[in-house]
Amino acid sequence: MISFPELQPSARVLLGPGPSNVHPRVMKAMLSPVVGHLDPDFVRVMEDIKKLLRIVFQTDNEITFPVSGTGSAGMETALANLIEDDDEVIVGVNGAFGERLADAAHRLGAKVCRVDAEWGRIVEPDRLEAALRQARRPKLLAVVQAETSTGVYQPVEELGVMAHRYGALVLMDAVTSLGCVPVEIDRWQIDACYSCSQKGIGAPPGLAPVTFSERAMQTIRARKRKCRSWYFDLSMIERYWGPDRLYHHTAPISMNYAIYEALRIIVEEGLEARFKRHAANAAALQAGIVAMGLELAAQPGHRLPQLAAVRVPDGIDDARLRGELLRTFNLEIGAGLGPLKGKIWRIGLMGESSRRENVMLVLNALEAALSAQGMEIARGAALMAADKTYNNAR
Amino acid sequence: MISFPELQPSARVLLGPGPSNVHPRVMKAMLSPVVGHLDPDFVRVMEDIKKLLRIVFQTDNEITFPVSGTGSAGMETALANLIEDDDEVIVGVNGAFGERLADAAHRLGAKVCRVDAEWGRIVEPDRLEAALRQARRPKLLAVVQAETSTGVYQPVEELGVMAHRYGALVLMDAVTSLGCVPVEIDRWQIDACYSCSQKGIGAPPGLAPVTFSERAMQTIRARKRKCRSWYFDLSMIERYWGPDRLYHHTAPISMNYAIYEALRIIVEEGLEARFKRHAANAAALQAGIVAMGLELAAQPGHRLPQLAAVRVPDGIDDARLRGELLRTFNLEIGAGLGPLKGKIWRIGLMGESSRRENVMLVLNALEAALSAQGMEIARGAALMAADKTYNNAR
Repeated sequence: MISFPELQPSARVLLGPGPSNVHPRVMKAMLSPVVGHLDPDFVRVMEDIKKLLRIVFQTDNEITFPVSGTGSAGMETALANLIEDDDEVIVGVNGAFGERLADAAHRLGAKVCRVDAEWGRIVEPDRLEAALRQARRPKLLAVVQAETSTGVYQPVEELGVMAHRYGALVLMDAVTSLGCVPVEIDRWQIDACYSCSQKGIGAPPGLAPVTFSERAMQTIRARKRKCRSWYFDLSMIERYWGPDRLYHHTAPISMNYAIYEALRIIVEEGLEARFKRHAANAAALQAGIVAMGLELAAQPGHRLPQLAAVRVPDGIDDARLRGELLRTFNLEIGAGLGPLKGKIWRIGLMGESSRRENVMLVLNALEAALSAQGMEIARGAALMAADKTYNNAR
Repeated sequence: MISFPELQPSARVLLGPGPSNVHPRVMKAMLSPVVGHLDPDFVRVMEDIKKLLRIVFQTDNEITFPVSGTGSAGMETALANLIEDDDEVIVGVNGAFGERLADAAHRLGAKVCRVDAEWGRIVEPDRLEAALRQARRPKLLAVVQAETSTGVYQPVEELGVMAHRYGALVLMDAVTSLGCVPVEIDRWQIDACYSCSQKGIGAPPGLAPVTFSERAMQTIRARKRKCRSWYFDLSMIERYWGPDRLYHHTAPISMNYAIYEALRIIVEEGLEARFKRHAANAAALQAGIVAMGLELAAQPGHRLPQLAAVRVPDGIDDARLRGELLRTFNLEIGAGLGPLKGKIWRIGLMGESSRRENVMLVLNALEAALSAQGMEIARGAALMAADKTYNNAR
């Protein structure tokens, strides 16, 4: 007889690319009693979640709700509903999440036109425009606002106007941006956008907030062929999340309680204050990283505040260092993905994890662990640089 | 400024078709600290969840894990991985969830051969065999073990041997059966099966346990074209849930804690004891229903123990009665779906909700609410019949 022990995962400080730490209020909300997915008490929560998500996405889009899956389920919802066979889809690819978009669009039958850029650099908007111009009838332009694999912030503010000039819709991956930096769906004329619950939003993983413009919904309603995916078919899901309340699938009730509370916390803090907090902690972290003699990997001027890509110094064992941080300090930072495996660390300060005490912890822990591997470090320099950054920002 | 109130959903007794009530131990488990999806502490939980699911599915299948979505995400995972364009798929359709299978398979490019039966009756196995015989090259036979929309138990024990005779795989929907009645994947030679977390398993909704035989995995590994779905692609997901631990998507950590604890509770109770409990409470409920003068809707001899379909008597307002149960007794029972809307109620006694006190509650509440709508009922007869059934079973 195998025995199964009581759960006792360690309490970690989560400074990787996500999940981030969860506020105790959100944990408590998850304990609210599970009710039916058509219960009037749950319907009220659904309505408020839609309103809260519209505030956070800065949109009036009617179709704004959390998909019942993790962030990539939001990606698949957008692509499966927007793409029909042989549609021309232009994808900016400068990291793992652009690759993912291109792969998923191809599987759904699209003719994918990749606009590649070096991992760690932005995709130049004029190259995206050239691709739109060269396409016969571009259906969709898809980009990643915050490339989680490299720490690059893609300029997206002008892409809506640009794509619409060529008759294309714009899809934006905001998985690592929503709740950390501005995501202005309406002002930027983004037609479809997806995110996740576990980074800037501050809930556990399990939901993918999405929003679709009226223009996107018209395209979806005019489909020639049904959506390939039954589970992600918006024409059915909108009848459950909309006034019809027609059963489609059983919503993850407890996860919706969690995101409701997390979104309430965001609205209480205020978007502006939240973005300022992320920027301030990021500036201090990055100053500390540099003062320690480490290098930031993403293109200067296009670095994400919520996720710093840091080059692994020569002679340092990546996996050993991350293991040491986890064991000794209960501190998680992220590894590099794909071609950047072993070459960078990814240090996230997102949502509830974006706190001054976490900046202090990770800088000190890195100093200690790098010293232990023989790197010469002026102990304390990082923290002094971080403190100075905070003081100058006042 | 809109204000968003603190969450306070009512505490309901959930006797609908799911979700069911959740054990306090499972709620507590969800509060375990969120860790990263590659954290060694989470990897240990993943390994134990696979072992626990193999016990519950009664299988040695290596590929056994919970999909990161609700029950229908399990359906889509199975279909999207098993089906390629123009594959012949035979689907038994005798209710809403057979319809769903046929619809989803069609969207994925299959040539769907429906074997229809009246809602409320089984699909006769010899008609399924006739369809297998007539197909040119049948790829898949798909059936629903417990048709949640009608309360019918489909005989499935022989389907594996039958389908294999014709070179087809068998897919079984066990959404409303797993944890309530035997689901013997290996003995019945079922090649793929999906379920959900929120019914017989007793966790909140949010995960879809699945299992795939080696024969199914060989078919999947030999695909000519990639799985249409990026999110549900088993060839990538198995590398995350398997020893490679290759990142695919961020698993819903807290939901996995919940299902771990729910599965532990099942193993502590024992499968045999659990099935007996479900059978005993079902027998008592059904005896009470009949004693009250109501009719069971599903085909005699093929009624699910965990979900009773009860005809709405003439002259009774379905929605008003269910509203009354919810308001006055905080008791949820289910409405009819599709053609059975307004014609049946669906009373579930699944997982944690399958308790003698709930049988007592729902019988008494139905008596009271039916009397209030003017139906003549011998008060107390239902409960006496239920008690007698319990006593006879001793």
